[in-house]
Amino acid sequence: MCLAHRRQSLFTADDPMKNIVCILEYDGSSFHGWQAQKGLRTVEGEFVKALKRSLQVEPKVLAAGRTDVGVHALGQVVNFSIDTPIPADKIFHQINTKLPEDLKVRKSYEASPNFHARFSATSKEYLYKVYCSNHMHPVFRNYAEHITYSLDRSRIKKAASYFVGRHDFSAFFKDTEQGVNPVRTIDRFDIHESGDFLEFHIKGHSFLRNQVRAMVGTLLSVGRGAKEPEEVGTLLLEKDRKNAGKTVSGKGLYLVKINYEEE
Amino acid sequence: MCLAHRRQSLFTADDPMKNIVCILEYDGSSFHGWQAQKGLRTVEGEFVKALKRSLQVEPKVLAAGRTDVGVHALGQVVNFSIDTPIPADKIFHQINTKLPEDLKVRKSYEASPNFHARFSATSKEYLYKVYCSNHMHPVFRNYAEHITYSLDRSRIKKAASYFVGRHDFSAFFKDTEQGVNPVRTIDRFDIHESGDFLEFHIKGHSFLRNQVRAMVGTLLSVGRGAKEPEEVGTLLLEKDRKNAGKTVSGKGLYLVKINYEEE
Repeated sequence: MCLAHRRQSLFTADDPMKNIVCILEYDGSSFHGWQAQKGLRTVEGEFVKALKRSLQVEPKVLAAGRTDVGVHALGQVVNFSIDTPIPADKIFHQINTKLPEDLKVRKSYEASPNFHARFSATSKEYLYKVYCSNHMHPVFRNYAEHITYSLDRSRIKKAASYFVGRHDFSAFFKDTEQGVNPVRTIDRFDIHESGDFLEFHIKGHSFLRNQVRAMVGTLLSVGRGAKEPEEVGTLLLEKDRKNAGKTVSGKGLYLVKINYEEE
Repeated sequence: MCLAHRRQSLFTADDPMKNIVCILEYDGSSFHGWQAQKGLRTVEGEFVKALKRSLQVEPKVLAAGRTDVGVHALGQVVNFSIDTPIPADKIFHQINTKLPEDLKVRKSYEASPNFHARFSATSKEYLYKVYCSNHMHPVFRNYAEHITYSLDRSRIKKAASYFVGRHDFSAFFKDTEQGVNPVRTIDRFDIHESGDFLEFHIKGHSFLRNQVRAMVGTLLSVGRGAKEPEEVGTLLLEKDRKNAGKTVSGKGLYLVKINYEEE
């Protein structure tokens, strides 16, 4: 029996297990990040609880991006295998009835058995919002990083261009695991102004831990004059986290979209 | 002694009482509106508590607009009389140390003794945000009214033009007090689109209770085709609250700015 045939036979039309994909949106303000942790309210924890209550299942849930404390999602993607008679595109209604109001499923569908929310992704898009004002506004307190100093936006744009392309981002991530490949590719790093907000739109194949927040923190250093735009190029070559800017807070970060070939 | 002289003598340079004005910003999500109510968390209640804790005073606080449950403020104005050696423009720092994170004072200053946050106002500006999407986004759940039906925006703009000018708004307010004059003047009623949001920017001398929310609710009826734009003119003439659209929720409403002649 050839391999292709074997693989197919594992997932025939009669196989009761469906690989369900859900697109999640959440307000990260009251979550201790994605990953389930005992005694803490996390997105994964609440989602798994809702699966149990709504569909009486407790599958392993795989997420495209494991967001940190305070980070929001406009389009987190997860997948899990379950055996259910409910049509895949109706499942999200059931789950939503058991989810809290700061976490909702926008859409659900069935994917091929090999689909993996994280490893099948072809690219990810993030947004980082900075609120520039002499005081923090209560309405925006959980939804943007707040800075009181003034920024030279043309310096920031010049510095950001150094990130685009394939680079060793050793100076721009939190090295918590051994053997992580620090080479990543940034496809796009756009900066928009919207009233008192400065928005960073970043797209790349995949990101290292805290990479977006370390890159934005470094750009803010450039914008206020503490670093030259050209220093970003040097930081990439030097590969020393200590020399780059600080990691800005999670509350300004939004996981916007995960892209896949097959959809 | 003439009246002008008497008034002046009541507030001489030696008078220790200062009429302090504060500009407040708040996220209305966790407040039961402005007005102090026993056992409920209100903006007035939290503000008075902070005055007591920071300045050891408990003055009567007058607000320009008594916002309802869930309503946000980008520029609420209050005033109160206190005797304090602290310079008026520094007072807000002291108060902020005792305020919760969803309520802050942006600015404080001393006004003339006759200044009254509500009665001295020459105009008020409100913003109403509607989120148009087939599902409510968790991040926006407390910051916009959510609608799932589609809207004809040109019909809404046409209908809104009927509100501008001096009219009897009997069909567009919650009549809770006797003897309220229902004639009000709307200076501006602009509609902007911003992504999935429809924003109503409204300026007028003063507003009746729930007036902005009843006007917006009626415009949404027009936008979805349940009423004709011209019916808004008829509703103003008929003066019957039952015939106008429903009052939209407080969470989409923002008290943006109070204007004064003297500032």
